[in-house]
This record gives sequence, C-alpha cells and structure tokens, in this order.
Amino acid sequence: MEKYPNVGYDFQLLIKHLLDRVNDWRPNETIHYRDKFSYTYADMYKRVHKLANLLKRLGVEKGDMVAVMDYDSHRYLEHYFAVPMMGAILHTINIRLSPEQMLYTINHAEDKILVVHKDFEPLINAMKKGFETVEKIIYISDGEEYSPQYEAAGEYEELLKQESDDFDFPDFDENTIATTFYTTGTTGDPKGVYFSHRQLVLHTLTEMAALSSAPYPAGFNQHDVYMPLTPMFHVHAWGMPYMATVMGVKQIYPGRYDEMIVKLLLQHKVTFSHCVPTILQMIVGNPATEQLDFSNWKVVIGGSALSKGLAQKAMSRGIKVMTGYGLSETAPLLTLANFKPGMEEFSEKDQIDVVTRTGFPVLFVQLKVVNEKGEELPRGSKYVGEIVARTPWLTNGYFKLEDKSQELWKDGWLHTGDIAYRDEDGYFKITDRLKDVIKTGGEWVSSLEIESLISQCESIAQVAVIGAPDETWGERPVAFVVHGKKNAAEEINSACNETLKQFVEQGKIAKWAIPDKFITVEEIPKTSVGKIDKKLLRKIYREKYAD
Amino acid sequence: MEKYPNVGYDFQLLIKHLLDRVNDWRPNETIHYRDKFSYTYADMYKRVHKLANLLKRLGVEKGDMVAVMDYDSHRYLEHYFAVPMMGAILHTINIRLSPEQMLYTINHAEDKILVVHKDFEPLINAMKKGFETVEKIIYISDGEEYSPQYEAAGEYEELLKQESDDFDFPDFDENTIATTFYTTGTTGDPKGVYFSHRQLVLHTLTEMAALSSAPYPAGFNQHDVYMPLTPMFHVHAWGMPYMATVMGVKQIYPGRYDEMIVKLLLQHKVTFSHCVPTILQMIVGNPATEQLDFSNWKVVIGGSALSKGLAQKAMSRGIKVMTGYGLSETAPLLTLANFKPGMEEFSEKDQIDVVTRTGFPVLFVQLKVVNEKGEELPRGSKYVGEIVARTPWLTNGYFKLEDKSQELWKDGWLHTGDIAYRDEDGYFKITDRLKDVIKTGGEWVSSLEIESLISQCESIAQVAVIGAPDETWGERPVAFVVHGKKNAAEEINSACNETLKQFVEQGKIAKWAIPDKFITVEEIPKTSVGKIDKKLLRKIYREKYAD
Repeated sequence: MEKYPNVGYDFQLLIKHLLDRVNDWRPNETIHYRDKFSYTYADMYKRVHKLANLLKRLGVEKGDMVAVMDYDSHRYLEHYFAVPMMGAILHTINIRLSPEQMLYTINHAEDKILVVHKDFEPLINAMKKGFETVEKIIYISDGEEYSPQYEAAGEYEELLKQESDDFDFPDFDENTIATTFYTTGTTGDPKGVYFSHRQLVLHTLTEMAALSSAPYPAGFNQHDVYMPLTPMFHVHAWGMPYMATVMGVKQIYPGRYDEMIVKLLLQHKVTFSHCVPTILQMIVGNPATEQLDFSNWKVVIGGSALSKGLAQKAMSRGIKVMTGYGLSETAPLLTLANFKPGMEEFSEKDQIDVVTRTGFPVLFVQLKVVNEKGEELPRGSKYVGEIVARTPWLTNGYFKLEDKSQELWKDGWLHTGDIAYRDEDGYFKITDRLKDVIKTGGEWVSSLEIESLISQCESIAQVAVIGAPDETWGERPVAFVVHGKKNAAEEINSACNETLKQFVEQGKIAKWAIPDKFITVEEIPKTSVGKIDKKLLRKIYREKYAD
Repeated sequence: MEKYPNVGYDFQLLIKHLLDRVNDWRPNETIHYRDKFSYTYADMYKRVHKLANLLKRLGVEKGDMVAVMDYDSHRYLEHYFAVPMMGAILHTINIRLSPEQMLYTINHAEDKILVVHKDFEPLINAMKKGFETVEKIIYISDGEEYSPQYEAAGEYEELLKQESDDFDFPDFDENTIATTFYTTGTTGDPKGVYFSHRQLVLHTLTEMAALSSAPYPAGFNQHDVYMPLTPMFHVHAWGMPYMATVMGVKQIYPGRYDEMIVKLLLQHKVTFSHCVPTILQMIVGNPATEQLDFSNWKVVIGGSALSKGLAQKAMSRGIKVMTGYGLSETAPLLTLANFKPGMEEFSEKDQIDVVTRTGFPVLFVQLKVVNEKGEELPRGSKYVGEIVARTPWLTNGYFKLEDKSQELWKDGWLHTGDIAYRDEDGYFKITDRLKDVIKTGGEWVSSLEIESLISQCESIAQVAVIGAPDETWGERPVAFVVHGKKNAAEEINSACNETLKQFVEQGKIAKWAIPDKFITVEEIPKTSVGKIDKKLLRKIYREKYAD
C-alpha cells in the first residue's frame, strides 16, 4: 500500500482556469474597444468558446500556431484565452517589424492561421508569396466596409456568428506551450521566446498578488479600471490583461494608439495603465491635456528607464507612476519599483528616487548582479554587473536555436544583458546595456553612469564615454566632451576630473571609473535615430587618439 | 534538434521561496510572541537556518517526520518553514486530542522528533511508553525555569543557540510532502491529511491574491498587522502565517488563548485575524471589552457558521467580519464571503446577509453542489446537495488509508460532506452536514433548514427534525416539537404546517421538505456537549412513533 495515497484530481495550472470565475463573479462588468464596441464578461466568455469552435473548424489542432496581427482589442483578448485553452499556440506578431522580418517570424514559427486587421493588408500583400505554412487567413474589418485583395477564410465577426458557444476545453499538461513571439536584437534574425500554461498562470497570479498587496504608488485591485498602453503583441501586454480578466475589472482596449487614448482615459475613468516613457510623455507633454484631470490614474512604466524629469512631470499632474522591469524573455515581470510601507510618507523628491529605480524583485523572482565570472557582487552603486534571473516563468530557450538558448542560460541563470547595481534597500538600478559597458581590470563600469556624472561638471555641454583598449586593464574609460565655452579646455577637463574624484570619495563610483583621458571635440557623432554612435567613436579613438 | 529547447532552470514551487524576499523587503519589521519575545524578520530568517541545523544534527533526513506540540508562537512559525524546507515533514499535533488519540497519531505518522511545550508534560508522560518511532524530544521551557521528567535532547532556545545560521536548503521536487496533521471525525481513528510544497505555495499565493485584490470587508495587504486566533496546529492556521510572512507584515503570536488576546490586539493595533465564532463571541460578548475600540480590526470567521446575530454584534463594534470556508482536507481555503464591487454600499442588513454566506470560491477552486448521483444541481436555495471540490491544494488521500482515500475522492471530486446550495450571486451557503441530511425521493433536504423555519412558527419553543424511514421515498422528514404553551397541540402543529406551505410558495423550501408528522414532546434530548441527539431521536421514533 502507498503510504501517501495519490488518488486526487491532478489539477494542472491551465489558462482556462483563469476564466473559471468570470461567469459568476462579475458577469455584467464591461469590456470596451475604442468607441466602437462594448460587451460583458459573460459575452466575452461565450465568444472565447465560439472562437475555439471556429479555429477547430479551420483545422487547428493541439500544438498548431495561430498568429494575430491586430491593435489592442477585445478580439486580441479573446485569442489570449481561446488559442492556448484549446492546446494551440498563440503567436503575437510584432506589427512594427519590416515585412521581411515579419515574414521570417511567420515562417519560422510555422504559423497555420493568421488573424489580420484590415490595416495590415499591405503587409500581407507584400508577404503572401513567401508564406510557407500559412493555411488560412481570417480578416478583421473592424466594423467597416472592407474586403481584402488576398484570399481569406472570412471576416472575424461574420465567422464567429456562425459558431456555437459550447466548447469543451480539454485538460492537458501544464507545461504545454501557450504563446510565442519574436524579440528583435540589434543584430541577427528575430528570436522566438515561448511560455507554457504553467508559466503564464504563475505570472498572472504573482503579478496580481504583487500589485494588490503593495498598493502604493501604483497598485491594482478589483476596484480599478484597466487600459493597456503597451501593445498586446509585446509579451502579452506584460500579462496585465490576464490579471485584469481574473479580477473581472472594467477593461478598455484602445485599438490603434492615437488621440482617442486620452478621450477613453477620461470617459471611462481609467485608473490603471502601463506604457513606455514615450507614451506617457506624449500624454502629459501635450499642451492640449494641460487642463485635464489625471489624478486617479496609476501608470507602470517599462520598456526603457523612467527619467526623474518625466516622473516629476507626471506626479505634478497627480498621476501615480512607478517603474516595472522585465524582458521579452522573462514573460516579463521581474521587478516593480513599488513602495515599502513608510515610503508613501517620503518627500516627493525621495519618492521620485524610488519610482525611477528599476525595482524590487516580485515574489519567486531571484535576481543577482554578477561579474563576468558569474560571481555575485556586493550591494551598492559601486558594484555594477549583469543582472541574471531565475523565476518560474522564464523562456526556456529560443525557438529552434539551441546555441542561443545555451548562451541565454549560461550557468543556469538567464542572462538579461542589463548592467545594474543593487542598492542598500534591495532595489535594482539598471545603468547600462551589457554591450555598452566598459570592462576594466575584471570590473564593469557603466558608460551611461560616468556620462551622467560628467554632464554635471561645469562647462561641459555634451559627453560620451567609451571603453578604449588597454594592455594592462583590458579596457579603460575615455571621455569625449563638448565644452559649453571655448578656450580653457584643459582647465575645464581637469576640474571635471576633480569633481569625479569627489564622487569616488562619496562612494558614488569606483575610482577605476574615472576616465583616463578627456578628449575635447566639436561634436559627438549620433546615429540616425539620435543615439550616441559609440561604434563610430571607438573607431575615431583607435585612428586618432590611441597611444 | 528540439523545437523548443528546454535549457532553463527548473524552478520548483518550494516553501523556501516564500522566504526569498524576507531579508530584503522589510528585514526590520517585527514578529511578537505574547509579551515575552520580539524579533525581526532578519532574526527569524537566521533562526529558521539554525533550526534546520539543529534538526539535522538530531538525525532528521528527507521524508522524516518532525512533530510540534505548542501554542501559537514564533517557534511554530520557524517550524512551518525550516522543517519542510529541509525536505522533512511537519506534523502539527492537535493538542486538544485525548492522550490515546494523540498517541495514535504520533505512532501512525511515525514521528521521529517531538518538539513540546512544557505545559504538555502530562501528555508526554501519559504517552511515552507507547511511542513506537519517537527518537528525540526537544522541550520548550517558554522562558521559565523548567526541566522535564522525561528524557529529552534539550531545551529549544538552548539548542538553537549552539547552531550556525548557515544552512543550504536543497532543491527538490515540488510534489514532496511538506506537512501533515490529523482530522477527527465523529467515528473511527483520526485520519492524516498531507500537503506538498506545491500545494502550500499555490495556496499561499492564491490566498494572498484573493484577500488583497478584493479588499472589502476583510482584505489583507502589506499594511496590515496580523494575529492568528486559529490554532497553528489546525491546517497551518488557514495558511495565513505563510501569507503574512511573504508580505513581511508585523505579526503577533498570542500563545495560549487567554485574556492576553485582547491586550495584544490593542497594544499592537492588530488589523487582521481569523477565528471560530466562539472566540469572536468571547471577545465581543465580554462586558469588560465594551469600551474598547475594535474599529480597525478585520476578522475572517471559519470552522463553523457565522450567525447573523454575531455578525451584527461585531459590526456594531466596528469590526469587519466575513466567513471563510474550508476543511482540513482542503488546505483549507475554498471560499471567502468577501464583497463584489458595489456590495460595500449595501445596507448593514444586506451586508450581514453576504458575510454570513459560506462564500464565493477563490481562484482555482472549482466547487459544485451535487446530488447523490454526482449530478450538478441548479442554482437556488431549493437545490441542496453535497459540495464537491477540485483545486490544486487538496489532500490526495488519507495517510495509509487507501479505502478512505478512494471514498473521499469518489468520481474524481473531493467530497466535503457539507450540504449546501449555491445562490444566484454564485455564493455557496451550507445548510447541513451530510450525515444529518434527509434523503427523500432522491432529493436532499436539510434538517437544519427545516428546523430554522419551524422555529419561526408561533408557540413552538424547540424543534428537531430527523429523517424517518419510508418505503416509498426512502426517508421522510419528521419534526419533534416542544410547545411554548400547553394544550392546543393539534392547532399549533397544523398552523405551523400552514406556515411551512407559505415558505414553499415563497420558494424558500421544496414542498417535499414539509415534515409528514409533528410529534409533540416534553423535551428534545441533547448530547453531552449540548447538541441535539439525533441518533437517540431516530431510535425513539423507531420504537414509539413508526407506523
């Protein structure tokens, strides 16, 4: 006889269970798509079942890939559930890719069904000859008169109408892949990441627990009204639509990001969103919004760093902002810059300091700052290294790329490529990307951080720091500077050097972070998108300034 | 090549991960034991490691059983973590069992180490000759001069002091058993239930998400102050100590339940507790507390039904109360009677109606009301049946009892033995225990519910309803009644019969719930603990009143 009989029901963590309460808890709460469409959770639940019947009729089986090209919509939400719930895989296509890159991802993922908004017809026409696996296309006319030039299975709404709302979603192993999408680096082809049912369920539950148990400054509970402002193709809009659906809150899907965002925000009294800094800047920086009341709005900022200036500007409008951090590879939630108890009493300046940090790991996220040998570094801004991660919801590799997968997971930790330190409060602060970091004497020095400090020196208008090859140390930092006034270049540079030494004494940077050379130039070269062209600067250094 | 490389770290849901943030998020927050002891989370973290070293030194290995006999204390909390984290199993002994029953559970569980509060020395002395597997006893002197009469390995604090606070808790399969304890029914030996790391982690996370995302009337977030008033031996005090520790809140462990409870409650400004109705009644019903301010206190009531009267009395003192439901077999959380958005605006009467329901299933809890054939019943108070459950955290059987395990899990659903209906809002309401239910014509009728309705009839002072054997229907309800006035027995009973017919018309009960007979008696027989003795009533019926 077994000591511990194991005769219970084997409950798997499946996405379908996120919908278990939807029909009973708040069936009449509403979900809105722009000013075009509204329905209840009870309706949504039915349409998820209809969609599964539709996809099944079109030949979708377990493990098949269903790809979506749409703006943020209730339709996308339906696919978030129906596709993985039937055992198929949802491929959320990045609609900002070039046609060549997009075609690559469609063929590489082996997409069987495409669901495409009418606006993307030019993309389909450009790609369709190259499709290797696509069998059917469903188009979305979005309430307008439209029929596509390409051959299609039909229009989304028309097709849904014909289906039954009865579908028996099967049980299966929680490690079944549920979603995939492609992340684009600076070089090479896009790489596919993938997440299982278990991973997305645990991500949803932990995100929910994190945001509702620590309510300041940007918490989330069932009394909130939710509108995503991060594209739904991008890591499931940070998993927030799953979380919002579990809680049964009012949800607003804005469609294409345009002037309607602000209108929807006010009309529906949205209380919670998430976006990149650019979107927040567009909203609070627009003179037309100056008289509007955003004081009930909480916003989590990710994608790139929330600057103190933007945080201050948003807070002066009454918006509660904080940073969230994660990558496509991490599902994405790793950290939130939410308040520990007591911080809600901080001065505005100190609160800004907290919310602009990269954040504190949420439950089940293990993060370390490591050096090149993989050794964990001590706390404090002097000790910068790469962030590596373990959580239950990280991609277990890149689709069909064994070598890249091994590289990502070197030493059993997922390597983020982000350079950071961990402060005394336990919050992380990203200072750089790994590829821009300077490696000197086995230590890593953030070029961005030195630039930030040099920019505080008197009479220095612009600065760029690169790693110059060095026989003894591997690399040494070198600063290119543009002066605010002409003449006295030597004095300005050596005064700045003194200023940096003070930062060393204050413990802000390590002494090996002080550049060996200050090179005065007329201008700093920029790339086509306005970023400092460090590649070119390294070349200039080698050719003109190297010893 | 594998399509989906699986080279990531295999993150298991282990109890040790509930402590991952403890040393960094709020290391200086405090945990208190009565007025005797206080320490920080950082201290607690160290002592969990010391305890693991101590137990290892005493010979504890993976799978071994460590049993605790203590009041609610910080020491118990340390065992909640250290024992399962090292791969051993924590047996939380019910200190209210008789020595014979307790000895049975200690031998049946194969306890290797006992950790015993000095107050339980008489129990140890009574049992020790019967110990079959116990190898070592650690005693707790609780800060007083004490040495036991039995042979012991040493005193808890003294032993801990000698240990290192460095212990490398291993990784292992999340399905490893973490805890066990014994549930006592009305008949037979106590039965052991058991829970894995995965189950307790998912229970903690879901409880946290449920209580913090739905904050009314009794939510919980990281700003709360926690004091359990359910014994820690009983289903991990409903898992709340795990949840409170994850959030890093101030925690108060009251030790033995006595007059100090109220003192601690006020001194530490406790905001959240959970207990059985009796404890709440003792606190709010005590004239000595009438002037005290309980208005920041939230209490979840479980174990038995929260009456409307007690709810009203607590609410009149400003206490936020609601029901929580679960069994020893269910880890325990199944439902909470928390508010849907909008209900916080209800009248007091309507709020009392909500919080005294058994509750709404939390996420990942599937509950059905089924008839004897296992068929799900429709919604509404007319349709009573047994509650059956599926969630990821149910015991997979009873320790070493294959048959009882199969019975518990008949048809793949855990049978709770509780009789209930589900209302139109989706909340469950327990009306009876299965063993007291009347089965008539394939339908189940709650004896408690008929009793409650009959007690509203004029001139009826006491009532007890039993199921009488019936050839046609299996059973038929029969009411024993004690009249408030003598004479006119016939008239009183037939008036009551008419009243019940009105309840049928109003849809409150089914027509087959009306008793076939009203039998007027002088008194209703009671058991030694004051409950109606239905067993005796059934015997009296068979001998005196059966046709």
